[in-house]
This record gives sequence, C-alpha cells and structure tokens, in this order.
Amino acid sequence: METLNIIKIGGNLVRNPELLDNCIRQITAIPEKVCVVHGGGKLLDELAAKLNIPQQMQEGRRITSAETRDLALMVYSGLISKQLVSAFRSHGKSAIGLSGADGLCIPASRRPAKDTDYGFVGDVIPSEINTALIRSLLAQDQIPVFSSVTMSHQGELYNTNADTIASALAAALSAQYRTRLIYCFEKPGVLLDPADPASVISVISETDFRQLKTEGVISNGMIPKLENAFRALSSGVSEIIITGESAILDATQSQPQHGTRITA
Amino acid sequence: METLNIIKIGGNLVRNPELLDNCIRQITAIPEKVCVVHGGGKLLDELAAKLNIPQQMQEGRRITSAETRDLALMVYSGLISKQLVSAFRSHGKSAIGLSGADGLCIPASRRPAKDTDYGFVGDVIPSEINTALIRSLLAQDQIPVFSSVTMSHQGELYNTNADTIASALAAALSAQYRTRLIYCFEKPGVLLDPADPASVISVISETDFRQLKTEGVISNGMIPKLENAFRALSSGVSEIIITGESAILDATQSQPQHGTRITA
Repeated sequence: METLNIIKIGGNLVRNPELLDNCIRQITAIPEKVCVVHGGGKLLDELAAKLNIPQQMQEGRRITSAETRDLALMVYSGLISKQLVSAFRSHGKSAIGLSGADGLCIPASRRPAKDTDYGFVGDVIPSEINTALIRSLLAQDQIPVFSSVTMSHQGELYNTNADTIASALAAALSAQYRTRLIYCFEKPGVLLDPADPASVISVISETDFRQLKTEGVISNGMIPKLENAFRALSSGVSEIIITGESAILDATQSQPQHGTRITA
Repeated sequence: METLNIIKIGGNLVRNPELLDNCIRQITAIPEKVCVVHGGGKLLDELAAKLNIPQQMQEGRRITSAETRDLALMVYSGLISKQLVSAFRSHGKSAIGLSGADGLCIPASRRPAKDTDYGFVGDVIPSEINTALIRSLLAQDQIPVFSSVTMSHQGELYNTNADTIASALAAALSAQYRTRLIYCFEKPGVLLDPADPASVISVISETDFRQLKTEGVISNGMIPKLENAFRALSSGVSEIIITGESAILDATQSQPQHGTRITA
C-alpha cells in the first residue's frame, strides 16, 4: 500500500518567507505522496481589523458571520492557498490549491446551534469525502493543498477547523493509502510544561491523554488537536505525529527524533 | 469529437443573486462539457477602496503592484471562485474553482515592461496549458472554473486578463475537443451603436472588424475582446460568440438568436 502523508501546516507562515521556504523545502523532500491542509486565522484577523469587521471567538472557535465567512474564502482559499501553490512551484513541485467546496471534496453540514450559534461553521461528513477526485490528483503527481473551507450538498459554504479537516481526510484516505497524519505547528510537540520547549512528550496514548487532561497538564488548543488525533487513529490512520514546523521531514522517518507520536 | 464550451462570465455577478442564478441555471442546462473563466474587477476595486490601496489603469489594463496582486488572489481566486462553485452546487453540479496557478494549468510569463510596467501581470503561454489535468477533471464530470490568475514556471503569481485566458484555453483544448468560446457580458453582443442594445451585429469577420475599428464604430474594451476572438479562431476554436448574460444557453444552439458570431 502506498504511503500518503497528510500534513497540517499553519497558513500564517506565508507571511514569513524564511519559515515558508523551510517548510515547503521539507515537504517537497518527502519521497511519498503528500496532501497539505492549512488554516490562517491570524491573517484573517489582520484583514478583519483593517476592514473593521469584529471577530468573536468561543472556546477557540470562530463565530462566523456571512461577512467573516467571505473573509475566510478570501484569506484561506485565495491568498494563502495560491501563495502555497506558488511556493511549491518555486521548489519544483506542482500543487493544486483547493477548498473543501471544490469538487465537493469535503462535504459538511452546518453546525447545529446549541448553546452557541457558530454561524457559517461546518462539521465535516468524513464518510462522504470525495476520495476519488483526491486520488486522481495524487495519481497525476499533484500535491492537493486544502484550505479550511467546506460546503454542504446544497452549496452553503463554511469556515471549518483545519485540524479536523486533516484528520477527516487522513481517515477517509486510509482505505486506499497507508496514511501518516502530521500536525505541524509553532511548538515542537505536546509539552509537559507549555513554557519549556524541551518538555516534549515523545509518545502519548489515549489513556495518558485523559490523565494529563484531568491533571490540567494538557489544556486549551491542544485538547481538540489530540481529540482529532485519537479519532483519526481509531479510523484507520497508521501514524500520527504532532511536531514543529522544522521537523516535518523528520516526522516521516521510521524513527522520528522530534515531536509527539500518538498511539492507541 | 466531444464539444466543450468555454464560457467567460463577469465575476462581478456573484454580487447579484438574481443574475448569478440566471447565469448558472443556463450553464448547467448545457448538455455538453463546460469550462468557465471569470474575472471580477469591480469587486477588486471595492476591496481596494476599503483598504485604501490605490488602483491604476492603463488602456483598460490594471497596473498590478504586489499588494494589488494579493487582492486579485483574494477576490478572484478566493471569494468569487468559491461563490461560483457554491452556485453550481446549488444547481446540482460539481464545479472546481482553480486559478491558472493550480497544477500550473495556465503558465504565463511576466509582461515585459516597455512603455508601461504593468507589474505582476502575466501573459499566458498558450502552448504550455496543462490540458491533461483539465481533461482529467472534465472526464470526472467536474466543471473547471478558472479565475484570472496565472503563474510562471518559477512560481511567480500574476493577474491576467480573463478574456485572454478564455481564448487561450479554448485554443489549447481544440486538439481534444470541438470548442465553442462564449464571451458573455452585460451587453447583448457587439453593437453598431453602443447606446442602442438593439444594434447587435449578428456576424462579424476579421475584415468587418478592421473596417469598423478604422471607422471608430468599435472601440475601447471591445477591441481586445475581438482581437482575442480572432486569435482563437485562427488557433482552431470552432465557434465564437459574444453575447449577453441572459443568452448563454442560446449561444450553444446551432442557430443562436442573440449575440455576435465571429467568423474568419
């Protein structure tokens, strides 16, 4: 079975030419198939501030008005998507920047309003991911680069969490590929002490996670990231690593020296 | 040989739900293959005004700074592209919004600075259009929707005239399909009297065009549009029609009742 790496990167790095170059250089050095997923919340915040469109977050999730959804289309699926395609090209690789709406690659349904109405936020329907189209692009040696935008079967566009998209893609493609899911971000992995980058936990199981969460060692943004990871693992994803932007290539090795490996 | 319709539409119509609905409804009623190209200059102007990014035009072409190029990525390849994909979906069709950069579908080179330096403006290299990727999408019953953004082989992103992209795509795909190029815009066709919508010229040859141009009957924006059309005709495109937004479906009939047909 062919290996496919699904790599979640921070979309904001397109603003930092050096980081971007380093990140794309590593990804293009991977000899296996690759699929990229990105967000870009900080760049969205910057544009929203310039346009005086107030932003509201709830438990780390963006409450998405129609205006803010249009910002997501512009910043994620326009600006960042095409700049990533450009960066891949400048390293000799052909990438294709897609949103989950294109070819209805990633169908979603609007998140039901319970305590909070998140507005135009979509929950991915993993079983309906258009794997046929994605496989056809991979077979043509394209690197699919997904922005964190999805769409319903009726054509409603949504802002969607990029970590969730990455884990859903990895799970859906596990029937056809041996999948490795790499969450890559500013920190070098899951930390025992958020203030100490040297405190990376090298391996974490779901039991460890529940324990560390109870103890308050793992909190905030890392919780949904790890929950996505365990969900992906139970859906057939072979390997999952949370690591730093400078250790992407390392994460594809059989014995990674950096980051946190997720195990059952 | 299968027929492929390459339809250039005005990207600005995404702001007018009624026009958009009418336009997409007609396109989805075409039983043959379809590929769409759009710009969206007015929406770009609106965003530029809100962000205080001054815009400069020269003979109807936009002088494109790096900042303005990023606006083009956002407005054309983000906002308009995904809203068109959404509109197709709401009419039951699957579209895939691409820029010319994606999969290097439409390679271009930066326009050389002669009298005017247009900045990040690309001239399409028609012979290098990635027809294999486009054909693979068409074969999967996707409607490729191209925004007017292109890229060099080195990864430099450009703003590019949408009419030119449409004619280059039609020419490049003429080896594999019987191509029909439909330029669709606010007016019902090429007019003898710009003030009189009833004065549509039903058929125009290159000789007619040279004559009418000399007489000043045809001027401004229509000149490059017709020049693109005659170039496409000499490159193997089977049929070319310039018509109104309400007559797209009519233009695909064997005897169109509206618009201007271009002949050799």
